[in-house]
Amino acid sequence: MDLRVELKNTGIGEAVASRRNEAHEALDKLWTGELDFTGWVRDPLEFDEAKVAELAAAAAEIREKCDYFIVLGVGGSFMGAKAVIDMLKPENPSTEVLFAGYNFSGRYLRELIKKIAGHDVCICVISKSGTTTETLSAYGIFKKIMLEKYGKEETARRTYVVTENRSNFLFDEATEEGCTIFDLAVDIGGRYSVLTPVGLLPIAVAGIDIEGIMKGARGICSKEAFAGDALDYAVTRQYMYEHGKKIEVFEFFDPYCAYFGEWLKQLFGESEGKDGKGLFPASLMFSRDLHSMGQFLQQGTPAFFETFITIKKDSADIDIPDIAMKPFAGKTIGQINKCAEKGVLAAHVKAGIPAVSMYVQDLTPEAVGELLYFFETQCAVSALLSGVDPFNQPGVEAYKKEMRGYINEL
Amino acid sequence: MDLRVELKNTGIGEAVASRRNEAHEALDKLWTGELDFTGWVRDPLEFDEAKVAELAAAAAEIREKCDYFIVLGVGGSFMGAKAVIDMLKPENPSTEVLFAGYNFSGRYLRELIKKIAGHDVCICVISKSGTTTETLSAYGIFKKIMLEKYGKEETARRTYVVTENRSNFLFDEATEEGCTIFDLAVDIGGRYSVLTPVGLLPIAVAGIDIEGIMKGARGICSKEAFAGDALDYAVTRQYMYEHGKKIEVFEFFDPYCAYFGEWLKQLFGESEGKDGKGLFPASLMFSRDLHSMGQFLQQGTPAFFETFITIKKDSADIDIPDIAMKPFAGKTIGQINKCAEKGVLAAHVKAGIPAVSMYVQDLTPEAVGELLYFFETQCAVSALLSGVDPFNQPGVEAYKKEMRGYINEL
Repeated sequence: MDLRVELKNTGIGEAVASRRNEAHEALDKLWTGELDFTGWVRDPLEFDEAKVAELAAAAAEIREKCDYFIVLGVGGSFMGAKAVIDMLKPENPSTEVLFAGYNFSGRYLRELIKKIAGHDVCICVISKSGTTTETLSAYGIFKKIMLEKYGKEETARRTYVVTENRSNFLFDEATEEGCTIFDLAVDIGGRYSVLTPVGLLPIAVAGIDIEGIMKGARGICSKEAFAGDALDYAVTRQYMYEHGKKIEVFEFFDPYCAYFGEWLKQLFGESEGKDGKGLFPASLMFSRDLHSMGQFLQQGTPAFFETFITIKKDSADIDIPDIAMKPFAGKTIGQINKCAEKGVLAAHVKAGIPAVSMYVQDLTPEAVGELLYFFETQCAVSALLSGVDPFNQPGVEAYKKEMRGYINEL
Repeated sequence: MDLRVELKNTGIGEAVASRRNEAHEALDKLWTGELDFTGWVRDPLEFDEAKVAELAAAAAEIREKCDYFIVLGVGGSFMGAKAVIDMLKPENPSTEVLFAGYNFSGRYLRELIKKIAGHDVCICVISKSGTTTETLSAYGIFKKIMLEKYGKEETARRTYVVTENRSNFLFDEATEEGCTIFDLAVDIGGRYSVLTPVGLLPIAVAGIDIEGIMKGARGICSKEAFAGDALDYAVTRQYMYEHGKKIEVFEFFDPYCAYFGEWLKQLFGESEGKDGKGLFPASLMFSRDLHSMGQFLQQGTPAFFETFITIKKDSADIDIPDIAMKPFAGKTIGQINKCAEKGVLAAHVKAGIPAVSMYVQDLTPEAVGELLYFFETQCAVSALLSGVDPFNQPGVEAYKKEMRGYINEL
């Protein structure tokens, strides 16, 4: 496996080993299909090369048609795609993927509308329920702009919808108008959907090799891939939680991993944060955040543990010229970054902070696919170990109900 | 005061009231000057209209000279400026302010270099010590590019430096080359420096009214402005911390406040996270993060309290056309945002989550200046209440020492 996990300073070797069986029982449960919403577990095997090729062909057609591909979606309907595109996008993509429908900001929408003016666009509306407030209200705005520019038929030809293959507002309207509809499997929840058309369509339009991503995911899509100590990360998380830790801090040394951190926050926060349980997930981007949260990590309330996710190879390194200050002059930015990474780890280990280190060899499509599936599995196992259902989100309805009440009063 | 603070569901009225005197004693300490690094306390009065006008004139000259103003700085040397520029920047600025020198990413630097190619640039190097690794290594890279384009003398004319007015690498080099140097007061720490030239120069170059910002800050720059219950936020934070809360979650309903959240994380994290103490600061952007962390907030581990910072007026609202899904059709995005805001607050109050609500009437320079000074004061008082020095950061040296060791081995 490209991805290696090391436990540093946790001092819990035996405790973790004693729960390995329990973790493998949880993994078994994911594979038997006895739980709802476990479609993602076998998805990399079932969404096979032929299906990937079909999707890649659709993406190639879209790239021919537009300068901008506007993806409307929120939560699991955009975070995975944005995370992967930020990490992997080619330097000069023929089509740029833009995201909207994930906030209620007039200013954001106005800036986007200004950006696309005079350019050819296609739109992609992603909503599992087909009724998501942010997404559907933004869709109304962009649809009107497209109708004025392209007319009804061409707008439909430029509109792509990803939703469940059953009656809902979006599905019904898209069917009637003749838009292209991609199926979002009923048994896959939003936060586990990045390796389905929800994530793969925008990722492919961005010019990224989705077959590589799926190949990486397929490589660890089996119970055997998580045999032995490979679930120790999930067990460690639960051990930390049961022994007083309240926060898991995901830490990166690459600013292009920011949305991968957001994706992790949703994955873990929504899967585990229920029944009064769960580690609060936070993410930090180093070295930026060493200058904001570094002090707290070193000497603040020890209610957290750290999960470092670092990339070994820097494929866009740049030289620091001789005129720069010594001792950086003549070195490269990537070399200094590695020194920061080693320095932080050494300082935190000396301070006794428990840390998990994961190393990715290089940010390739294969490595990213593996990373995504790896975390989905670890998260589901971890949630099952804590005794909660990883796949529901019963608390989300509370604010939505209140919000709908206020909207109806408008 | 434009800014109002409400305590919701905290149920701690009497406990907070009983510590008001203690909070005012802490505030007194800030004003007597008996503590080091309290230059920021009187700064809005001392950095008066004449000094602001001088800085604004320098900014106007810079805008004449360049399309891009590249600000190099990390932590307190860029977060405040970026926060304010994101919140307030005009729609079509004549000069765009870009930030670098806050990470070790070759890819980030390469993309920036590509962006500025063929454009006129000025550069601004901000470092209190004059030796910051991220900032000084990026400076070497951009300086080389400018020397090739402009030659030595013109490069110096386009280079602006903000550092302490005493010998350090940056100060000495800039003095020798004849660059313009702005003084960073010795008794103001990075995270309290946004209302000095550190923040004000880039903000002014971005085309924002810095006199308005300072006017807002001056309006609450007195002990009297924090009389009565105006320090209850600081006291509430300490009460929460002493009663088992580990995390303060800052929550916004405007994506352009993201860096303001980062600024708050540094302010509180670095001021309070020491001696094994402090609330872990996190920030969330709604409605985006309702679809990732909403579940956790509603039903997860109750180790946090919430601080809502909401803006009453939406000055860039946009209509949702009639073709959109009901019931959003015919409403505005701003109206729906308000419903989300009220809905979240109602749902969280019902769930018993302690919350502090702050309302800003409108995102104007005055309001933002007030907001910045408000939080600086509350943070310093809060840290003093918890018995730590708000103005040092002894833990930051640990990783830097390790890092320097590795750099010297290169």
